Amino acid sequence: MNVACLDLEGVLVPEIWIEFAEATGIPELRKTTRDEPDYDKLMKYRLDILREHEMTLADIQKVISTMDPLPGAREFLDELKKEAQVIVVSDTFEQFAAPLMAKLGYPTLFCNSLVVDEATGMIVDYKMRCEQSKLTTIRSLQACGMEPICTGDSHNDLGMILNGKAGFLFRSTDAIKAEHPEVPAFDEYSDLLQAIKEAR
Amino acid sequence: MNVACLDLEGVLVPEIWIEFAEATGIPELRKTTRDEPDYDKLMKYRLDILREHEMTLADIQKVISTMDPLPGAREFLDELKKEAQVIVVSDTFEQFAAPLMAKLGYPTLFCNSLVVDEATGMIVDYKMRCEQSKLTTIRSLQACGMEPICTGDSHNDLGMILNGKAGFLFRSTDAIKAEHPEVPAFDEYSDLLQAIKEAR
Repeated sequence: MNVACLDLEGVLVPEIWIEFAEATGIPELRKTTRDEPDYDKLMKYRLDILREHEMTLADIQKVISTMDPLPGAREFLDELKKEAQVIVVSDTFEQFAAPLMAKLGYPTLFCNSLVVDEATGMIVDYKMRCEQSKLTTIRSLQACGMEPICTGDSHNDLGMILNGKAGFLFRSTDAIKAEHPEVPAFDEYSDLLQAIKEAR
Repeated sequence: MNVACLDLEGVLVPEIWIEFAEATGIPELRKTTRDEPDYDKLMKYRLDILREHEMTLADIQKVISTMDPLPGAREFLDELKKEAQVIVVSDTFEQFAAPLMAKLGYPTLFCNSLVVDEATGMIVDYKMRCEQSKLTTIRSLQACGMEPICTGDSHNDLGMILNGKAGFLFRSTDAIKAEHPEVPAFDEYSDLLQAIKEAR
């Protein structure tokens, strides 16, 4: 049985940390995995900055709730759900994604979690769902007979893109596209939808 | 990260084969796993009967498209999606479930597939997704860090109900409830929703 596995940020919604950095005027939060490839280091850096600015989870969610999915993303998902099962496989945190998932019609989301201090509302830690999240997720889906058709834009998506039944790049960088000329790359939802339908 | 794993037939929609037997007036199709515990034998028997009556997949889908989810099921799912990730884990076939999934707002579905002869439209075989489907599915989900909270009504649901983070019976039989007094059993969606929320 086919399941379309979609990355979230860059594919269905804007990059959450970058939008958040702009909305709050905290430019240090613009740093991404492109600048700091060690995700653990990057997250600790981000949580330190949030603490410095005394930003609670609620403050952050308030900013995120003003964000919208990428234009056409909701319509794409609504069409895709008619053609295949869908799981959004993301390295974001469920507490961040929640307001955006509502605007996407609540597709099923596999991601990570934040650890929040109930008394202060501050984010004190985070809990990764598993190692090599995208690859581990599709290996797990394959273990119960699902056939993942995977789409993403970044390096961390390649594990699922290269090991599923089919894989696609969507609005990726020129560098990644050049590194993987064998992976079909698309920029329009209509082309991606067609490719997923044909890969079933 | 929590994921609510829900059985389909008996929990969200009526028993498809029984409804189908009634709609077509073919009483032999009322036989279920309660009468014939060997699922492979049962399915071969069902496909033989469909062939005898020269019923194509399209004929069957036409009947299924007149069926509706159980009253309140859609509203329950819409609420549940706000509280947890949701996957419907079913032993039905995707080609049968499709019209009902549309009426449920397209929750993500893990189930089996029918093999259809393209020329005649007849169902010639079926393909099970994996062995011990419900248990294998939640074991796979656990392997990528998801924590299944499982609900079902039948014997074949016990594998996931007993091995998830939490498990519930919904509109089950007195016999199954008596066999598993340790599993909370509910008959109303509001009670089930509350139990899933508390189990997170």
